[in-house]
Order: sequence, then structure tokens, then C-alpha cells
Amino acid sequence: MKLYRLGGAITKPRGFKAGGLSAGIKKDGSLDLSLILSEKDSNAAVLFTRNKVKAWPVLYGIEQMKRGHSIRAVLINSGNANCCNGKSGMKAVEDCVKALSEELNISSEKVFVSSTGVIGVNFSNSAEKIIDAIPKLAKNISEGSGQRAAEGILTTDTVTKEAVVEFYFGMKKITIGAMAKGAGMIHPNMGTMLVYFTTDCAVSADMLKDALKEVAAETFNRMSVDNDTSTNDTVLILANGMAGNKYIDGKNRSYNKFRKALFLLSDYMRKLIIADGEGVTKVCEINVVGAVSDKDADVVSRTVANSMLFKTAVAGADPNWGRIIAAVGRSGAGFDENKMGIYFSNLPVYKNGKVYAENIESIRNLLEQRYVFLKIDLGIGKGKAVFITSDLTAEYVRINSEYTT
Amino acid sequence: MKLYRLGGAITKPRGFKAGGLSAGIKKDGSLDLSLILSEKDSNAAVLFTRNKVKAWPVLYGIEQMKRGHSIRAVLINSGNANCCNGKSGMKAVEDCVKALSEELNISSEKVFVSSTGVIGVNFSNSAEKIIDAIPKLAKNISEGSGQRAAEGILTTDTVTKEAVVEFYFGMKKITIGAMAKGAGMIHPNMGTMLVYFTTDCAVSADMLKDALKEVAAETFNRMSVDNDTSTNDTVLILANGMAGNKYIDGKNRSYNKFRKALFLLSDYMRKLIIADGEGVTKVCEINVVGAVSDKDADVVSRTVANSMLFKTAVAGADPNWGRIIAAVGRSGAGFDENKMGIYFSNLPVYKNGKVYAENIESIRNLLEQRYVFLKIDLGIGKGKAVFITSDLTAEYVRINSEYTT
Repeated sequence: MKLYRLGGAITKPRGFKAGGLSAGIKKDGSLDLSLILSEKDSNAAVLFTRNKVKAWPVLYGIEQMKRGHSIRAVLINSGNANCCNGKSGMKAVEDCVKALSEELNISSEKVFVSSTGVIGVNFSNSAEKIIDAIPKLAKNISEGSGQRAAEGILTTDTVTKEAVVEFYFGMKKITIGAMAKGAGMIHPNMGTMLVYFTTDCAVSADMLKDALKEVAAETFNRMSVDNDTSTNDTVLILANGMAGNKYIDGKNRSYNKFRKALFLLSDYMRKLIIADGEGVTKVCEINVVGAVSDKDADVVSRTVANSMLFKTAVAGADPNWGRIIAAVGRSGAGFDENKMGIYFSNLPVYKNGKVYAENIESIRNLLEQRYVFLKIDLGIGKGKAVFITSDLTAEYVRINSEYTT
Repeated sequence: MKLYRLGGAITKPRGFKAGGLSAGIKKDGSLDLSLILSEKDSNAAVLFTRNKVKAWPVLYGIEQMKRGHSIRAVLINSGNANCCNGKSGMKAVEDCVKALSEELNISSEKVFVSSTGVIGVNFSNSAEKIIDAIPKLAKNISEGSGQRAAEGILTTDTVTKEAVVEFYFGMKKITIGAMAKGAGMIHPNMGTMLVYFTTDCAVSADMLKDALKEVAAETFNRMSVDNDTSTNDTVLILANGMAGNKYIDGKNRSYNKFRKALFLLSDYMRKLIIADGEGVTKVCEINVVGAVSDKDADVVSRTVANSMLFKTAVAGADPNWGRIIAAVGRSGAGFDENKMGIYFSNLPVYKNGKVYAENIESIRNLLEQRYVFLKIDLGIGKGKAVFITSDLTAEYVRINSEYTT
């Protein structure tokens, strides 16, 4: 399998075009409207935010997915989240869907929409701008302008997040492309994670859904900048089957290979997202092993990942194992105090009840790198989990306290 | 009832002496050893940290409390937490207890000990210093030196936290005094909350325990600077009965009055603790009403209180109701989106699906005050909870990332 970062990744699989433009929703004139179009009907699977407060496009998408899983076009705007703004928000979604389906001459059921941006702002004005821009947008999509689509979905992100994975079923080359916008940003009210996958793999909607759910549980649900969940979070995958491989409609070896490729890509995408989080200077991979169960390992990894004391210690390159042990202790998970170990890049700082003072200086150096690897061995079982988090910097606080509504 | 802040609060109830000195555990020569002594045997109740990693004095205290609830003396050191430092830590506790019981000529079962400070550091050296200092400490306790005891337990706190509540049973005046050290501090490894109450009320150990548990659930368990729990947290109450009131040994009217006084004092103490948290510039009271249950209200209050997005918004005096709604939404608690309301000092910023833009400037002004009052009405029931939190400032991050192990 081949995994790499690539501008325009979502148009790398066969049969996908994309593009982006400025519809005038964002006041600074940067790109704010993106379109992905598949040449053929695509099977689709989607995961939405678990936040009980949901934006209108999310509520619309939940109903849409109950009716069918065939999608041709994806329309995404940034600059306005279309959330907590009264019932006119739903009407605005319907108007945008109708305008795009007419422009592209496809069924409205096959148009998927997302929004990200400020919440609590009326969307009618944004919808007008979107509808006005749709004809131009439809003309400007191509196989070469995928990166513009990736730009149009950004808010406070500093770079586009795009990557590709390629593999073979015999002689058939399969490509999965991805684009995302980041998590843990606040401006203009809070952050939204949006991730879109395109693939030419021939795979059923049911298998797509299972693969996406399984992979997201291990990747997008195990990352955190500030432990918040937005009202707009969406992860979508489209599969148009144009690679011509044998249709995957069961959990066979081909499914496993596809799932593995999707995992690799998702794991990489979450790292790109965290690395570009607001005020983030370091990405920290927390690898918990030796737990009673995978569930316990997951709880420990989350507790450490969201500990402000741990995150500030990472920012300050401080090998502060006391803060890690305190987080493990309050997580409620089982561990053996006399057998547990805390390692940075496999160098122990605390193990079997003993402090490794001789390693402190080396670990401080490891903590000064952009990528930090923490391993926590709970010493009592086989359970494991990997979680990706960031440091917590004064810059994060500055960005989030200086923004005014 | 009369509630006020007072230096030397713990010696205000009849029959209590206290004091503090520098035993040389802290390198800067500040006070690091405190003693509270009751003239008569006191009934005692105590709550310990729920962290699964517990310091040696906590483990010692848990066993001690299984054997009896009569305490005469409390010995507290700062500068070394006596935690995660191998089995010699327990021996050190026993040595200190023995030295104090011999010096004061009281049973070792009646000596209670606490430690706070760095974790992972051998305690034998600190124990020697404590044992050397005990004779001098025992001579220097008095009814007038309670404030020195309050000073000796501090770590990164900037002020002592002491208060008194007074009330009457007929002609009998009852006093409860309190001293505490703060939560949410890291230096030298993480923070510990220690709270000590003394009272001359005549009340059984069982009733003391019930009152302390009930009150702590509503106060000390509903406050947060950084949502961490230390390995040393301890809340202790001693009641020596010297006020001469009718012994409280059931849940009668006198119990309710005592419990109410303890609640008022605890509520005030938690505010003093939060206000002095590291990098804290504002204290925020989160009052959740209209929940399906008190439990749901509690969950919402905790989720908002620990949201970094909300805490940075408070720091920046930003009436960012979007971050509050997002936190409510991800808490999992029930609410009615069309009936919920968000208020600062009773001024609505969002209510019944409508944004009160006309109030934004007034609310920004309210958010610039040292004390912030947030009310969240979930609009579907009678459940309620009050949680105290702090803002999150760049100063907090600076303190916690610049400290090096």
C-alpha cells in the first residue's frame, strides 16, 4: 500500500471532479464553497456528530440517509454553520440542494450538503450567495482543481489536509482520496471536523458503512485538541466503483484490505488535523498497553489526552510522569502500581515503582520534537488503544480568549 | 448564621490550638509543617481522594479510620507528597505518627497525618526533618497562631484560605473553622486539595460523616480549575463537643442546622480555593436549572465547567453562547432546544431559539468582572446543580508548561 500527502487528493480516484470558489460568505474573499462530483452514482456512508445540538445540514443528511445511499454531488460551504438559527435554516438547505440538482441535472436525493462556520447566524443570506454561485462552481470543477475544494472548506486551518492511499486487487488499482478541515478551532464560534473520502473501489453501501464505522472508532473518535464536539462534524465516503474490481459485499479478504487502506488514510488524516489545531506546536501519540481490556485502555488514553496538566507539560517539554500517573489513577481503569511503566519513545521514565532519573534529560529532548510518543503500560493485561492529542499552549488560550463574538 | 473570612479560623472554635513552622522540607525556608491539636478527643470524619493512585498518608488514614474515629492531633507537611516513592513511604508515616504521639503523650491512633508537594520523591529525609521539628512545633501551638498552620500547608497558593461560620443552639454558640490549600496547581507536580474543619459542636462521628459527605458532594466535588484529581486530596472535620450543646446523634433539626452551616462554610471555601487557582483571574458560578433530573443538571454543569472553549471565552470576556450550547449538546443530558435559555446574571443571551444581540454589550461587561454568574435553563424539568469553575488563561498554561521536573 502506498500512502502520501497530495494536493487535490479527492480527484485522484477515477471519475471524480471537484472545485471551489469564493461565494462571498466569508468577508475576506477566501474560498468558501466547494463541490465534489462523481461521474457515476456512488455508494455513500456517513457519520455525523454525536452532539445533541445538530446543524440543519446534519439534520437534513440524517433524514436523507434513511431514504438511500446513492450520492453524486457534495456541496460544502464554510463561513456559516447554519446552526441554532431558527427553522429558516432547513428551508435554506433545501433551496441549495434544489439549485444544485437542477444545475447538474441530477436527482436532489443524490446531493449531499455540509456547512461549517459561525453558529447562530441566519443562513438565508448565505443561501442566496451559494445559489448565485452554483452555475459558476459547476463549470469550474475538474480533475485538476481538487485542491480548491479542500481550500473552500477551511476555517482557521492554516493548510489544506489532503492525502491518498493506493493499493491493488490483482491488476486493478484502487485509490482512496481524502480532504478534511481541522478540529479544535473556535473562531468563529467553535470548531468542526469535516472529512470527505472519495474512492473508485466497487464496494456496497453496507460494507462502506461498516468499514467507516470501524475505522472512525479507532481514528477520528480517538483524537482531541480540546475535547469538544461540534454541532456540524461529518465524515463522508463516496465509492463509485470505477476501478472495476470485484464488488465487495461481504467481509472477505478484499473487505479487510479495503478497510486497512481506509484505516491508514484515516490515521494519517487525524494526524494532519491535530498538527494544524489552533495553537498546536506538538502532536502526541498516546499508546496504552497492558490494560485489562481495550475499553480500559481507551479510557486511560482519553483521560491522559485531555488532561490540561499533561498537555501543558508536553508544551513545556517536561517529562512530568506524576501528571500522567495522576491521570491514570483518576481514569478509573485497572492497573498494577508495581508493574506499570511510562515511556517516551520506549525510554522508561517510571517503571515497576522506580523513577529513571538517568533518562530525564534524553526524554526532555524527545519532548522538544514535533512528534511525541508516549507509551503507558498498565501492567495487568492485553488491552490496548492509541489516541492522538496535542500540547496546550498559551497561543491556544490567546486565540480562544481574544476572539470576540 | 454568621460567615466570614478570618486569619486563624481553625482555632476559633473552643479547645483548638494550632501552629506552623519551617522544618526545612521546602528549600525556600517558608512554612512547611503544621499542627492542629484539640484539648479533648474529637469525633472525626474524613473524605479521601478517589484517585486510584493514593499517597502513603492517605493509605494510612484509610486504615486508621477503619479502627476508630477519635482524633486529637493533625500533622500536615507541604513540600513532599509522600507518593509513588516505594514502600519506605509508609514507614516514614508511621515514624512521624510515633514521634508526635510521644511528644504530645497521646495514643498514636489519635494522630492524623497529611502530606502535599512533589510526588515520586523519597520521604525518609523529609520524615527526619519533621521528627526533628516536632518538639519545637508542639511548643509553638496556641489559640493565636492558627494562621501559621494555614500557611504551612500551602504550595503554590498565594494566600491562606481560612473562614469561620457561627450559629446558635439556644444560648450555646457553635463555631466551625476551616483552612484549606488550593486546587488546580501543578508545581511541583500536581495540585492537592486539603481542607480541615474544626468545630466545638457536640456531634457523633456518624452524623459528622453524613454531613461531610452530603456537603462535599455539593461543594468540593463541584468545583474545578483543571478537572484533575490529586493523589493526596483530603477533607477532614474534627468535632470536640466543647460548645456543650445537646449531642447530635440523629438527623433532627439540630443536625440540619449544623449541616447547613457546614454547607455555607464549604461553599465559601471552594470559592476561595478557585479564586486562588493558578493563573485564575475569574471565578464562574454555573447554575443549571430546568433539567430532567439533578443528575442531568450536574452533568451539564461539569461539561460546561471543564470546556476549554468556555473557560477561554470567560478569560476573554466573550459572551460566546455557541460554546455553551455545544457543551450542553455533547454532555448527553436532555434539553429542549426551543425552550432552553442561557443567561449571565439573569440577562439572556440566547432564549427560546433567539439570540439577544441587544444584551451582548452588557454581558461583555458582566464577564469582565471577577465573579461571573452563568445560568443555563434546559427548559424541560426541575433538576438543578451549581458548579464553580475558573477561567483558563495564558498564565495558567505558562505556569504549567514552564515548570520543569
